[in-house]
Amino acid sequence: MLPVDIADIETAAQTLAGSIQKTPTVAAPRLSGLLGCDLVLKLECLQYTGSFKDRGAHNKLAGLPESGRRCGVVAASAGNHAQGVAFHANRLRVPATIVMPRLTPFTKVARTEAFGAKIVLHGDNLADSQAHANTLAADRGLTLIHPYDDPLIIAGQGTAGLELLAAVPELDDIVVPIGGGGLISGIAIAAKSIKPSIRITGVEAARYPSMHDALAGIQRAYSGSTIAEGIAVKEPGVLTREIITELVDDILIAEEGMLEAAVYQLLTCSNVLGEGAGAAGLAGIMAHRERFAGRRVATVICGGNIDPRLLSSVLMRGLLQDGRLARLKVEIEDVPGVLARVSATIGDQGGNIVEVHHHRLAYGQPAKRADLEIVVETRDRTHITAIVEQLKAAGFGVAVI
Amino acid sequence: MLPVDIADIETAAQTLAGSIQKTPTVAAPRLSGLLGCDLVLKLECLQYTGSFKDRGAHNKLAGLPESGRRCGVVAASAGNHAQGVAFHANRLRVPATIVMPRLTPFTKVARTEAFGAKIVLHGDNLADSQAHANTLAADRGLTLIHPYDDPLIIAGQGTAGLELLAAVPELDDIVVPIGGGGLISGIAIAAKSIKPSIRITGVEAARYPSMHDALAGIQRAYSGSTIAEGIAVKEPGVLTREIITELVDDILIAEEGMLEAAVYQLLTCSNVLGEGAGAAGLAGIMAHRERFAGRRVATVICGGNIDPRLLSSVLMRGLLQDGRLARLKVEIEDVPGVLARVSATIGDQGGNIVEVHHHRLAYGQPAKRADLEIVVETRDRTHITAIVEQLKAAGFGVAVI
Repeated sequence: MLPVDIADIETAAQTLAGSIQKTPTVAAPRLSGLLGCDLVLKLECLQYTGSFKDRGAHNKLAGLPESGRRCGVVAASAGNHAQGVAFHANRLRVPATIVMPRLTPFTKVARTEAFGAKIVLHGDNLADSQAHANTLAADRGLTLIHPYDDPLIIAGQGTAGLELLAAVPELDDIVVPIGGGGLISGIAIAAKSIKPSIRITGVEAARYPSMHDALAGIQRAYSGSTIAEGIAVKEPGVLTREIITELVDDILIAEEGMLEAAVYQLLTCSNVLGEGAGAAGLAGIMAHRERFAGRRVATVICGGNIDPRLLSSVLMRGLLQDGRLARLKVEIEDVPGVLARVSATIGDQGGNIVEVHHHRLAYGQPAKRADLEIVVETRDRTHITAIVEQLKAAGFGVAVI
Repeated sequence: MLPVDIADIETAAQTLAGSIQKTPTVAAPRLSGLLGCDLVLKLECLQYTGSFKDRGAHNKLAGLPESGRRCGVVAASAGNHAQGVAFHANRLRVPATIVMPRLTPFTKVARTEAFGAKIVLHGDNLADSQAHANTLAADRGLTLIHPYDDPLIIAGQGTAGLELLAAVPELDDIVVPIGGGGLISGIAIAAKSIKPSIRITGVEAARYPSMHDALAGIQRAYSGSTIAEGIAVKEPGVLTREIITELVDDILIAEEGMLEAAVYQLLTCSNVLGEGAGAAGLAGIMAHRERFAGRRVATVICGGNIDPRLLSSVLMRGLLQDGRLARLKVEIEDVPGVLARVSATIGDQGGNIVEVHHHRLAYGQPAKRADLEIVVETRDRTHITAIVEQLKAAGFGVAVI
């Protein structure tokens, strides 16, 4: 017997009615064309606090006895769980304390505080914060809201699965990012109860494949930065592991570059803003097209809370990758008029110069030569080649950096 | 008698059923808090081709007689109208020719071509392209699909209003960007037929207030670049002008900076990607808060097709505006160890340096001094002030650029 069943999820759906956003499911025709499957997106990034965490948080908070509500709750998180708990605790008038690592970016602190929660900055990492949250729970009689390893949390997340199958009953596949495993556990229970033939696939970030490893009996340490920080979980849940073992068909691994590409493609092809973890399902499909070819596939864009500076650099790197920006190194004689000739050549080819740097100290260059580094807006890779050829024909040494 | 009535829009809704995305309406709690109203967003940016244009295009195409379908259609547009016509013509197996100005960015050409349309590049601007489309229509017997001044187009766009009021019947206000006026015309007819008390407000970009001026009897020329290029229309429609005169309560003007801020706020507060024109309704509300205070307001995010490079710079400029990035000019002695002292001072204050430039040729500087330009990631404006004070206390001349 699993710790959560379809009846728990249906009860959660009743509890949540009117208190969360019933998020939309939209077709993704351009991505479907690129990937060779019929893809729909379940947009949990449009949930009130920008991720699916609202569902579990509200379900857990609404299920507290009167005494528990009065005393209040505590959670450890610097991310989406913090915001979900803070927002719904505020709505239900339950005092909430959120413990975050000391160096948490100010915006995350401010956002969570704006929802009315008390923020405690403690420890150097989330494990320290979690330990402190446990202490606060014990000392002050607060209820600890675990981010995933709790039947009410899992049942709450599962309501996303009910909505998805109600919107698109003919699905063959659901692809869900795995962090602690709460979302995929809930969705797997809901979806397989309604449609046993459906295939459920999890996706983890290559640097933090902790659930995949746990199922394979592998023990190791995880580290490193990832764009999918929302699913960078080192220790999978006990309940979620049990459910995943039983109901999830496979766990795919998405490399860092694929996660970044998925954020870019999601935004440019479907106008959908997903954070790294939110786009991990799409990254998994991109990395394993053959698995999904010709099938009706849904993926849950589970969160959209990405830092604007990070997003900005993902966009610029995506343009470089797409051949819509190019960095060229052009060797020039350091004499008057040369920049004019270089830029005229690029302009004649329809390239739009957006940055120019002169390097006069390059290793191995004679003193009378210099390197120009030029960033050009281009149409595609063919266009870059045409510009490079034209510069070479004009007598310049050119390399694409 | 207006050229379109509610029955036309209801018929259009039947025609469109199953052929367009019924787009979601989502709450915007964070923006509501900032603006002091109860705001919901109708996400036409999640329409199949990324804007509301699908609605009118499909309605018009589906209404063609058999002979018209066989001969094919022509439209002039470099933007959302082109994509809407191309996509739905392809679905309905109607041959489509799209005329675009010669210098149209390659991505827009490629996207429209990918939907199966034949692209003709003609003329230096949209007026030239439109004239050529008219010629092609006359010479080859093609049906011209006008972007707004057509009853079937207006009725198609009006279906967005039906969906919006079905989703949120208790609305007081609907705020809609105005380009040619097709969308607001259709929505105004739908909404005021269902709920005569509702207030309909249009928003135009400050550089192209052509409908506002037409209603006020002002004649002048419009020019200049705007982030809201999708509504940069010089010549308002005849039918749409008649409908707007009758049914739209007011037209607000949004300045360029407000349009840009709206794109940024929409993305960072609600995880919604709107293009400049798409966020113009939000910009109007931001610029006229008192008009909407305490009311239940919807705005239509009418398109999401923004260039990634433009979006990237909107994000970086938004961060500067928010005080989350700062550009500092620091006067230093040009001797060893100074950069280490400056960066240590900034680091001690929790600022994260992301760019450094040395300027040694600044006007009025003695030869032994230099200017450092430093871009720092900061928490907010208070944090910037703290860093500046600390640098001054350490003896450096500092200015925020």
